Amino acid sequence: MDVMEAIKHRRSIRRYKSIDVPDHLLKELLEAARWAPSWANTQCWRFVVVRDEDVKKKLSQTLSERNPARPAMVEAPVVLVACAELRRAGYYKGEPRTDKGDWFMFDVALALQNLTLAAHSLGLGTVHVGAFDAKRAGQIVGVPDGIAVVELMPVGYPAEGPKPPPRKELVTFVYHDRYGHPLNEEG
Amino acid sequence: MDVMEAIKHRRSIRRYKSIDVPDHLLKELLEAARWAPSWANTQCWRFVVVRDEDVKKKLSQTLSERNPARPAMVEAPVVLVACAELRRAGYYKGEPRTDKGDWFMFDVALALQNLTLAAHSLGLGTVHVGAFDAKRAGQIVGVPDGIAVVELMPVGYPAEGPKPPPRKELVTFVYHDRYGHPLNEEG
Repeated sequence: MDVMEAIKHRRSIRRYKSIDVPDHLLKELLEAARWAPSWANTQCWRFVVVRDEDVKKKLSQTLSERNPARPAMVEAPVVLVACAELRRAGYYKGEPRTDKGDWFMFDVALALQNLTLAAHSLGLGTVHVGAFDAKRAGQIVGVPDGIAVVELMPVGYPAEGPKPPPRKELVTFVYHDRYGHPLNEEG
Repeated sequence: MDVMEAIKHRRSIRRYKSIDVPDHLLKELLEAARWAPSWANTQCWRFVVVRDEDVKKKLSQTLSERNPARPAMVEAPVVLVACAELRRAGYYKGEPRTDKGDWFMFDVALALQNLTLAAHSLGLGTVHVGAFDAKRAGQIVGVPDGIAVVELMPVGYPAEGPKPPPRKELVTFVYHDRYGHPLNEEG
């Protein structure tokens, strides 16, 4: 699938068919994550691929009951627990290099965006789930000290085709040479 | 260009040809960023498109002299200053929703990964520059309070074709149902 087509037509999927995701497709998704760029090539991302029904159910309980993605944790055949090794991205000789501190959120997001685009191109759906009890999720999958749980991401065949949520127009968030100056006044 | 091809063949480009980037291609890149998913569709990303030679030169001086991307800030016809509106991503009713606090780094990275893949598919090069004086860069482009400068990203036609830095093997960062359990022992 074409890059721009994948970017524009990927949607967040919260309903899944009860069809398994073959291992070779799952590997392709993880391969996509693997090729993301990262801070000084530190590759801080880590993934736990959860297929076990009991573990998925426990993970679903780390989401609030109001979270529309909660049923997806059980419905989807696979839930990825996206983790990060801390104090790698954004660090130089053990000290944070910038005012942002640890860049793990940035680098894990790069990997996950690759993964979601690859998934869409293979006919698979995903959704970013950031609102959950990350500490409890970490206990469920046995994450050690020094590793943060960032997101839960169901992966499976979509059972819905949601409309795209509206996006801001470019003129409202793109400026020209200086913040606040509209783009292309002269072009 | 195919999604997986773009993901695997995109490289970080630090040498650029002195050829301008047409406005319609630049718009396509920003359009790619626009379609990234974001926390509750908050779309906190903001971009300053810098073409002004003097502004690019000043921005280059926010990088240390050892930074291999420093010359690219002047050489590339365009430098994007990727910014974020704070206290939007990861927030609910004005309060952080998770232990990660503000998710702006995560959401800006999603948008930038779309942008870099779109750039590669259009024959353009980019590189993530995170190690620079973000406060000074913000002053240079007039970023107001409540907006963070996240990255500088040169955009232009590549004058180099660097080899891919090595990536960790999947078995070293992908686990099965529990952190530390190798993937696919049984498959």
